[in-house]
Amino acid sequence: MMKKLSRLLLTSRNQISRNITNGKDGNLSNGLLLRTFTSHAGISTSGQNINVKGGIAGFSAPYIVYKGKAAFSVTPVLPTFTKLDSGLHVVDRGGCMMLKFTPAIGERKYDWEKRQLFALSPTEVGSLISLGSNDTCELFHDPSMLSSNAGQVRKSLTVKPHSTGGGYMISLTVVNNILKTKDYISVPFTTAEFAVVKAACSYALPHIMGWDRVTEKVEKVNSGRRTPDIKFDRGQLMDSEWDK
Amino acid sequence: MMKKLSRLLLTSRNQISRNITNGKDGNLSNGLLLRTFTSHAGISTSGQNINVKGGIAGFSAPYIVYKGKAAFSVTPVLPTFTKLDSGLHVVDRGGCMMLKFTPAIGERKYDWEKRQLFALSPTEVGSLISLGSNDTCELFHDPSMLSSNAGQVRKSLTVKPHSTGGGYMISLTVVNNILKTKDYISVPFTTAEFAVVKAACSYALPHIMGWDRVTEKVEKVNSGRRTPDIKFDRGQLMDSEWDK
Amino acid sequence: MMKKLSRLLLTSRNQISRNITNGKDGNLSNGLLLRTFTSHAGISTSGQNINVKGGIAGFSAPYIVYKGKAAFSVTPVLPTFTKLDSGLHVVDRGGCMMLKFTPAIGERKYDWEKRQLFALSPTEVGSLISLGSNDTCELFHDPSMLSSNAGQVRKSLTVKPHSTGGGYMISLTVVNNILKTKDYISVPFTTAEFAVVKAACSYALPHIMGWDRVTEKVEKVNSGRRTPDIKFDRGQLMDSEWDK
Amino acid sequence: MMKKLSRLLLTSRNQISRNITNGKDGNLSNGLLLRTFTSHAGISTSGQNINVKGGIAGFSAPYIVYKGKAAFSVTPVLPTFTKLDSGLHVVDRGGCMMLKFTPAIGERKYDWEKRQLFALSPTEVGSLISLGSNDTCELFHDPSMLSSNAGQVRKSLTVKPHSTGGGYMISLTVVNNILKTKDYISVPFTTAEFAVVKAACSYALPHIMGWDRVTEKVEKVNSGRRTPDIKFDRGQLMDSEWDK
Repeated sequence: MMKKLSRLLLTSRNQISRNITNGKDGNLSNGLLLRTFTSHAGISTSGQNINVKGGIAGFSAPYIVYKGKAAFSVTPVLPTFTKLDSGLHVVDRGGCMMLKFTPAIGERKYDWEKRQLFALSPTEVGSLISLGSNDTCELFHDPSMLSSNAGQVRKSLTVKPHSTGGGYMISLTVVNNILKTKDYISVPFTTAEFAVVKAACSYALPHIMGWDRVTEKVEKVNSGRRTPDIKFDRGQLMDSEWDK
Repeated sequence: MMKKLSRLLLTSRNQISRNITNGKDGNLSNGLLLRTFTSHAGISTSGQNINVKGGIAGFSAPYIVYKGKAAFSVTPVLPTFTKLDSGLHVVDRGGCMMLKFTPAIGERKYDWEKRQLFALSPTEVGSLISLGSNDTCELFHDPSMLSSNAGQVRKSLTVKPHSTGGGYMISLTVVNNILKTKDYISVPFTTAEFAVVKAACSYALPHIMGWDRVTEKVEKVNSGRRTPDIKFDRGQLMDSEWDK
Repeated sequence: MMKKLSRLLLTSRNQISRNITNGKDGNLSNGLLLRTFTSHAGISTSGQNINVKGGIAGFSAPYIVYKGKAAFSVTPVLPTFTKLDSGLHVVDRGGCMMLKFTPAIGERKYDWEKRQLFALSPTEVGSLISLGSNDTCELFHDPSMLSSNAGQVRKSLTVKPHSTGGGYMISLTVVNNILKTKDYISVPFTTAEFAVVKAACSYALPHIMGWDRVTEKVEKVNSGRRTPDIKFDRGQLMDSEWDK
Repeated sequence: MMKKLSRLLLTSRNQISRNITNGKDGNLSNGLLLRTFTSHAGISTSGQNINVKGGIAGFSAPYIVYKGKAAFSVTPVLPTFTKLDSGLHVVDRGGCMMLKFTPAIGERKYDWEKRQLFALSPTEVGSLISLGSNDTCELFHDPSMLSSNAGQVRKSLTVKPHSTGGGYMISLTVVNNILKTKDYISVPFTTAEFAVVKAACSYALPHIMGWDRVTEKVEKVNSGRRTPDIKFDRGQLMDSEWDK
């Protein structure tokens, strides 16, 4: 069903594309309508490998930048927690910012089958948001690091300011020694688009670290009444500097 | 009813205006009282084209700057979501920051019928919040972009630092070839007012992108008990970089 | 009862003061214990003019800086809203950051009866948070602006960097022509203390503007089940730029 | 039980360590898997002195940096509140950012028994987040300040930029005159890691100050229905500048 939706949206996308002949790629003139449609296209992307198990709760709203040669999207992925016997929840799988790079296969057409992923850890988000205006940063991943295929696939992400000033180029290189492939996908960002990526990553950082959960108030529910309550437990839990 | 309220508030506004003869426009001496009243006036603005359908839930609190020749207001507009069969919510209509420019028609009187709107997309908000102290930014919209009237109405928003330093001029030009009109509304901002606009837009950005929904915790409700629960589904939903 | 608490705390405060002979004023060595106690003292301040009506819900946690000649506290005051017949909530009384200045009357004793208030509007908060490291800002208030006493009381707040660098002096002058009094209270801030004030004001700004309410999700409650729901109403409410 | 979990994790940690021979310490190549495992190790740390009383609600998600000679973790600790007879909640025990320093006792092995704590007050967090790129800051604590052991234990935390640029060294010195010990633990931070610490502390600051509670909306619960309501009480509670 999601796949069907994906096709449907790609179709309507193309129809829309034909109409916006007065909007150049990368400028800001397309406004709300283009954004709305790109959100749908973004959904179709992630829809292709959803493993539906009974039903999905949640919201999808990736920030997507469409450019001539490729599209880029970024969305936060929250950590998951495990509840210990003590009642304390600890991080099970860490959160990340999921970047997706999708090569173009024609005017405003993108080949979702060839998209490449790069998941930024909190520290890697720190690299991104602390990037000075003339700084370059490069991050390396080995997706099969702990398996027998370690070293077979190498991904590198480069964020580099345009030499002409104003904006950045974000590039992903994926070398796969098993499939004997090398992919290179590159997306130019305007200053404004990069500012959104930085601001959105800054906003998301505490969430992918799980600190939104750590700082939230505990609420008790008694017999239908829901009253905010104060975390006396939390204070007792933490080992005080003074207790040592 | 809203229209009546609008008139009422404009009347009381004028009564108040007569009293604040010792407060000059653009300075900060008016404090809380003026702000409270401007909030009401702001409501009257949006009240004029409310399409009431059964009842409106929600809160209105635009940030308004009143100046001699025009008033400016800004308020976030959240995206709307559609629930797919899978249970996932996807963006239906994108969010924006709605700017309103209203020309003055007398001392502290504004002509709400002539107000002009400009909706900033997330990327355009990125332009605004990344603006250097000597930078100018210009944004163009065609409200009827995808209709047969494409190109007939052109809006351009300019944000420009004062040549004397300290503050910005924000101007909106609307050329309407159908009505043969050209409107130009310009509002001077002090450094403090512009700082509020930037800070408020930075705060609102993740919300108009829908990321507040993406990062929120999922809560289960069972038989009257409301217990926070952890997003295992979310983790399963997202395609991992490592799964590829 | 609050008054009694106030006395109690001032007493225990002095007892504590005698013990911290190795902690100099303005340095950071006192850590958690001093902070905890100052929070109580802060409560006693506001306790003196509480007008109890049936019971108060809510939390009090002012940020307080105690110095040799005076104490300073800051706390956000949220706006209040009125519900219109349409169901929309509009700002009734604007929010502010409430600053309190209390002169010392002895070593670590403060005269709460002589405290002076200064309520920062959102735009005035903009002045504070956009202050450059060498900038000075001055704000003027007339508390009885719209009454027959207009002009009789003049308050001015000055924020000025230390000439030696590193930190600011925040001073409040209150000239009361009715009581024939002139008060001047001045509090030196370290860079760290001023950073907390700026960061805390930046955090609070959207809240005192009411934007936390504007951006919050609407939740429906049906027959005991509480399910997050999406704001379709909000989208319909807002007048679109494109509809114009 | 927590202790057992701690051992278990240290074991699996070592197994994992042997596998990641191609990942150097301090670089960013380890991605999600390492982060996930460090979160567990972090739990084991705090698990060793948990004083379980009936059950702990809450979430643990410290940000941990593992380096050759020591590990560093930081997590927010929320303030606790006491409810007065009036219904107002006041700060009982102030919040802080809890820093933990743990010396290494072998390759990727850390001696949790020798960990040292340092609790940053809000003002000390202000020191950290306002630190210029060439600035050094030093903070002193006396954990037994108000007891008969005052002056016997001295802790000092130093944050110092690397002389080669890019990143900081965070060091903790603990001199204990009772035990006749002196500990020095030092952890190098990359620019990215320090950016995460700063961003995470900035996010957490209003929470450890209790301002998330001060700015939250009050919600009423009537007979199973949960409707957001507006804080009229709050407005009446706060003494207005104008009322004075």
